[in-house]
Amino acid sequence: MKKLFNFYIWLSLLSLPVTAQNPDSVMLRQLYNEALKNGQTDIHLRYLTKHIGSRISGSLQAQQTVVWSKNILAQYHPDSVYLQPVMVPHWDRGAKERSYYTSKGRRVKMDVCALGGSVGTNGNITSGVVEVKSWAALQALPDKDVRGKFVFFNRAMDPTEIEVFKAYLAAVDQRTKGAIAASEKGAIGALVRSLTLAKDDYPHTGAVSYDSSVKKIPAAALSTNSADLLSDALKQDRSLLYSLNMDCKQLPDVQSYNVIAEIKGSKYPDEFVTVGAHSDTWDLSEGASDDGTGLVQAMEVLRLFRATSLIPERTVRIILYMNEEAGAHGAIEYAKQAMLKNEKHVAVIESDAGGFMPRGFRIETTAAAMSQFQQWNNLFKPYKANNIELQQRGVDLVPMKGQAIALISLDCDDSRLFDIHHSALDTYDKINPREVAMGAAAMAAMIALVSKYGL
Amino acid sequence: MKKLFNFYIWLSLLSLPVTAQNPDSVMLRQLYNEALKNGQTDIHLRYLTKHIGSRISGSLQAQQTVVWSKNILAQYHPDSVYLQPVMVPHWDRGAKERSYYTSKGRRVKMDVCALGGSVGTNGNITSGVVEVKSWAALQALPDKDVRGKFVFFNRAMDPTEIEVFKAYLAAVDQRTKGAIAASEKGAIGALVRSLTLAKDDYPHTGAVSYDSSVKKIPAAALSTNSADLLSDALKQDRSLLYSLNMDCKQLPDVQSYNVIAEIKGSKYPDEFVTVGAHSDTWDLSEGASDDGTGLVQAMEVLRLFRATSLIPERTVRIILYMNEEAGAHGAIEYAKQAMLKNEKHVAVIESDAGGFMPRGFRIETTAAAMSQFQQWNNLFKPYKANNIELQQRGVDLVPMKGQAIALISLDCDDSRLFDIHHSALDTYDKINPREVAMGAAAMAAMIALVSKYGL
Repeated sequence: MKKLFNFYIWLSLLSLPVTAQNPDSVMLRQLYNEALKNGQTDIHLRYLTKHIGSRISGSLQAQQTVVWSKNILAQYHPDSVYLQPVMVPHWDRGAKERSYYTSKGRRVKMDVCALGGSVGTNGNITSGVVEVKSWAALQALPDKDVRGKFVFFNRAMDPTEIEVFKAYLAAVDQRTKGAIAASEKGAIGALVRSLTLAKDDYPHTGAVSYDSSVKKIPAAALSTNSADLLSDALKQDRSLLYSLNMDCKQLPDVQSYNVIAEIKGSKYPDEFVTVGAHSDTWDLSEGASDDGTGLVQAMEVLRLFRATSLIPERTVRIILYMNEEAGAHGAIEYAKQAMLKNEKHVAVIESDAGGFMPRGFRIETTAAAMSQFQQWNNLFKPYKANNIELQQRGVDLVPMKGQAIALISLDCDDSRLFDIHHSALDTYDKINPREVAMGAAAMAAMIALVSKYGL
Repeated sequence: MKKLFNFYIWLSLLSLPVTAQNPDSVMLRQLYNEALKNGQTDIHLRYLTKHIGSRISGSLQAQQTVVWSKNILAQYHPDSVYLQPVMVPHWDRGAKERSYYTSKGRRVKMDVCALGGSVGTNGNITSGVVEVKSWAALQALPDKDVRGKFVFFNRAMDPTEIEVFKAYLAAVDQRTKGAIAASEKGAIGALVRSLTLAKDDYPHTGAVSYDSSVKKIPAAALSTNSADLLSDALKQDRSLLYSLNMDCKQLPDVQSYNVIAEIKGSKYPDEFVTVGAHSDTWDLSEGASDDGTGLVQAMEVLRLFRATSLIPERTVRIILYMNEEAGAHGAIEYAKQAMLKNEKHVAVIESDAGGFMPRGFRIETTAAAMSQFQQWNNLFKPYKANNIELQQRGVDLVPMKGQAIALISLDCDDSRLFDIHHSALDTYDKINPREVAMGAAAMAAMIALVSKYGL
């Protein structure tokens, strides 16, 4: 009887589709099913965006996000959940910026916003404008032509670049380094074309860098429509006058926290696989795609493990980093503590690519580990998340370089991200609940595989 | 000297990336560059949705769309542009539907809309409700339990199906065939759960079929929230009463038109490659994704050929089909005329999958032609449109089955489509201009390849 029984089991296994025999395929299917049927990302994203809203580092809303997210993680029964203290900067925009140019007796309003971290203008400042589209063009200008003026960085993102993120990377240096380069030549302010392919009236903020060797000058983003208007006006009247008034200022640093939850590894509790996103946002919107979606996806990973009774062999840590946008102080503190405790990190994973349809993962790792990831490609194929590329992207992962074997970013379709990124347009209605759920499942699956097999 | 010169050419070719040497790669790059830099799809989609709006077959707006789109095509300098007459049905929704259930003295409003083509109720009709989730469940019911009642088809789309379109296909039979099956058992009306994964208050319409052998009974879609409410209420009170009042009716058929433009083939003018989309929509929205995006993409293909000075070897036809939604009369007429003229069609291509991020093409063709398409896979890879699958999808292509070697549908990411499909939510703001431009370029590229190489 025993023999016959086994024979029938063997027969029934033969008739199953190939994937159903593979326990990893079954695991992925369970994670996706749970995320798509019972996912809680959407309800959390709605609360985060509509009840908490923008949560710039150092703000009350950022602190509220810490308390709220820790409570949710606690409800999902982690083995532990705790706060990791970190001091963060607190920059405040103040009153809405006022800006216009005056040419031939006509005053034209410009839609601008201060770049994050910019110094204020201390009242209205007015001067001429020099427009440049490259670093070489700026360097070629005699200092006397720049001194006392605004430098207007107007190099547009390339619409023909298929990866919109690459078009962003190729233009973002104007925002991060423009104020330094302009100040080196004696300018009084930096005006930067917003980093978006959309033509509209919404300025996009983002961090500006300063250098202690030169004077900090105010830096503002112009909406793409305003940038085009100003550029056209300069063609007619090179001596037009530009006025900028920004109240923004740096307040004292604030005590804040990374939120961390853990599922203890069953075999290798002292090896870690982390999944994270950032709690803070810029201040112009409710931060739906940057990085509300990542935050709710990271929390959902814990829920997915518990709901599918998945026990990781290595310890899984969910990390909600504070202050990605203004210096990544949370991520730096996490890496510092990990080093002090000599913790072995197998992989660190993050979701900070907008929460749109996941396409796969961008990974920075060794050649050996990369071939391991490539072997998992087929597991992700049914979910269309099998585009696995060697490339690093995540700001919150960089501090773990050298400490973790792999740095992994969820890669999402980026067609829509930069239209809304860092602007007032980054709102809940732009997000599709199913796409967010698919991303949470993809991250949970990747973490489950890494925690099972190591690298 | 000549020898040395050639040697340097040879050297310079070696240093070029592989793709740049391939004239087809260069052609694709040119088409994408033109679409992404100078594309006109967005300006046309805005006009179509905001100035013309919904354009149900037989309506004034549908006729307006014919005139408008013919004018735009003419501006792009085709070798010819003309109208192909076709008689189309004209169904009118009439006053907004009124519907509610009454249980235990409480009246609860239901969000419903008539299914397209449904007969009206001729005043208020009120009766009991039988809920079913499968055809088997309906068949198992004794006729006496159904007679004189509403049949409520409440089988939800499967949220765990990764291809949302497949989840739609697995549920749409309730909408198309529900009224016939219910009428066969003596029901007085069919209520169908809206075909969407979203939980909201918007009913989704779509065509209902009738059968001459049974009485035509009114058929309505309930929003998913209303469907859930009704289902819950039935659990509490199986004898609750449902009321439905719909004014809709079929008006006389109307003379309408397919709009056709041509670029003459340079080598094989009598062989045709067509690219199409449909002009008509349902009446609840401005029809942005269904099929406004397809319409502007099809027109853009003509512009892209002209702007890049691309001369097709086979004749390219742009076809804007009338009345896809209510019987595909336009597509049937096109196929009939093509057969009467004995025209040789190499491939017919359409865009009717929402205009979201293109993933590739779904193709129904011979094995030999399919291997040809697979060889082009690498050309589309840089544009992430290289998912080429053997599968048929396009309603407007079906009449050409047997007359064309390949039926090709642009395949787009479908995460967002069915949330808005056939409902009041299908509006311009849901569409991303870049995604539409990418789709137009993908279609132009496919047409260029087929017209160059044949199948």
